[in-house]
Amino acid sequence: MNDASSQGLSQLRDALRQFAAERDWDQFHSPKNLAAALAVEAAELLERFQWLTEDQSRKLGPEDLGRVREEMADVLNYLVRLADKLDVDLLEAARAKIVVNAAKYPVEKARGSIKKYREL
Amino acid sequence: MNDASSQGLSQLRDALRQFAAERDWDQFHSPKNLAAALAVEAAELLERFQWLTEDQSRKLGPEDLGRVREEMADVLNYLVRLADKLDVDLLEAARAKIVVNAAKYPVEKARGSIKKYREL
Amino acid sequence: MNDASSQGLSQLRDALRQFAAERDWDQFHSPKNLAAALAVEAAELLERFQWLTEDQSRKLGPEDLGRVREEMADVLNYLVRLADKLDVDLLEAARAKIVVNAAKYPVEKARGSIKKYREL
Amino acid sequence: MNDASSQGLSQLRDALRQFAAERDWDQFHSPKNLAAALAVEAAELLERFQWLTEDQSRKLGPEDLGRVREEMADVLNYLVRLADKLDVDLLEAARAKIVVNAAKYPVEKARGSIKKYREL
Repeated sequence: MNDASSQGLSQLRDALRQFAAERDWDQFHSPKNLAAALAVEAAELLERFQWLTEDQSRKLGPEDLGRVREEMADVLNYLVRLADKLDVDLLEAARAKIVVNAAKYPVEKARGSIKKYREL
Repeated sequence: MNDASSQGLSQLRDALRQFAAERDWDQFHSPKNLAAALAVEAAELLERFQWLTEDQSRKLGPEDLGRVREEMADVLNYLVRLADKLDVDLLEAARAKIVVNAAKYPVEKARGSIKKYREL
Repeated sequence: MNDASSQGLSQLRDALRQFAAERDWDQFHSPKNLAAALAVEAAELLERFQWLTEDQSRKLGPEDLGRVREEMADVLNYLVRLADKLDVDLLEAARAKIVVNAAKYPVEKARGSIKKYREL
Repeated sequence: MNDASSQGLSQLRDALRQFAAERDWDQFHSPKNLAAALAVEAAELLERFQWLTEDQSRKLGPEDLGRVREEMADVLNYLVRLADKLDVDLLEAARAKIVVNAAKYPVEKARGSIKKYREL
């Protein structure tokens, strides 16, 4: 991920804002609707993997990977759009959650254990 | 979103990589499993909105917003983790998808119309 | 729902069992995979509603309703298939859950209140 | 599944109808909201399996199975509730979908093949 050249998520947010404004779609983009759309896209991403073994999922061919990449893009775009509507700083929230999870899953207790492992 | 100071998604990817390595969790992080975990987190985010009206979803109180922010963080963290495993450049994929969608939903035809509106 | 003439879910379970057997698909139908497929179908159902207002969702036209019905069928079929694999009696489980929920949401406290309302 | 003694889904529909009426929850049960709640419950079901191998998912212990059964009950209850609101006959829809799928996945072509296998 080349954030230096792209200026990253802020630029993406602006592009999505413009995309919606040009189409007068802000009326549909309530946080509730965006959360639903995000869940739908995440499920479409999962659909690409649902009948694969875990091992097959590690070795996608170029066509499957292309589709997976598109679904991941949809997920990110709705997430960034929702963050914009709610004024959430995604990167800050993500970093803060890692700190929370580090306390929740101490290294010495969580190592290699699926029993302790409930969520990232 | 302040990418300049944070270096953005690359740094987040590295933090998540280290988090998993320290706990020996890479064994659980097949793309298939990460896609499932991502869908689960997206649904937990949706759960926060499911009984609200659209209007209520625009006016979350601080407590609800805090929980929503945590769920959004979980979604981003799994998405970044999956992108790392599949070697996908998320920002590039997101930008490419906007170009695809711009062709799919031309401004003059898509304006204000939910009929044409199927996905972002 | 006319269970008397159809013998209901048991017959459906048998039809799905035969469907999978004829195609040698039991190898793909682990509970984990069926749970993923069920979540994907539930999201496809949600997709039909995501940009509608609540009021519009109550007044679907025949075409939209037909699609919704198909997605609901997919959800039920995967749910029945999963129940077969795990030897779960769906109706008994559903009735037991209503008893649990009745205790969790006492009439006098839950009436009309979304605050108490977290899940059915 | 013992539909003979229970009269099956119709009785369940009536119990859920009464449950909502007693709590004045019909105001929250728009088809859109019920579809979202259904997707959320399906994801909670998936969550129980997300870090398990397929083989582990076939051998749940009694505690895990109990939780899985509860989540399956939630899925069925919301599905039946949605069917009630939309006046959909679930069993008829499910049977009709099997006929559609039988034409879509002919036995001789679909046998054992995940490539042809897109949905049930």
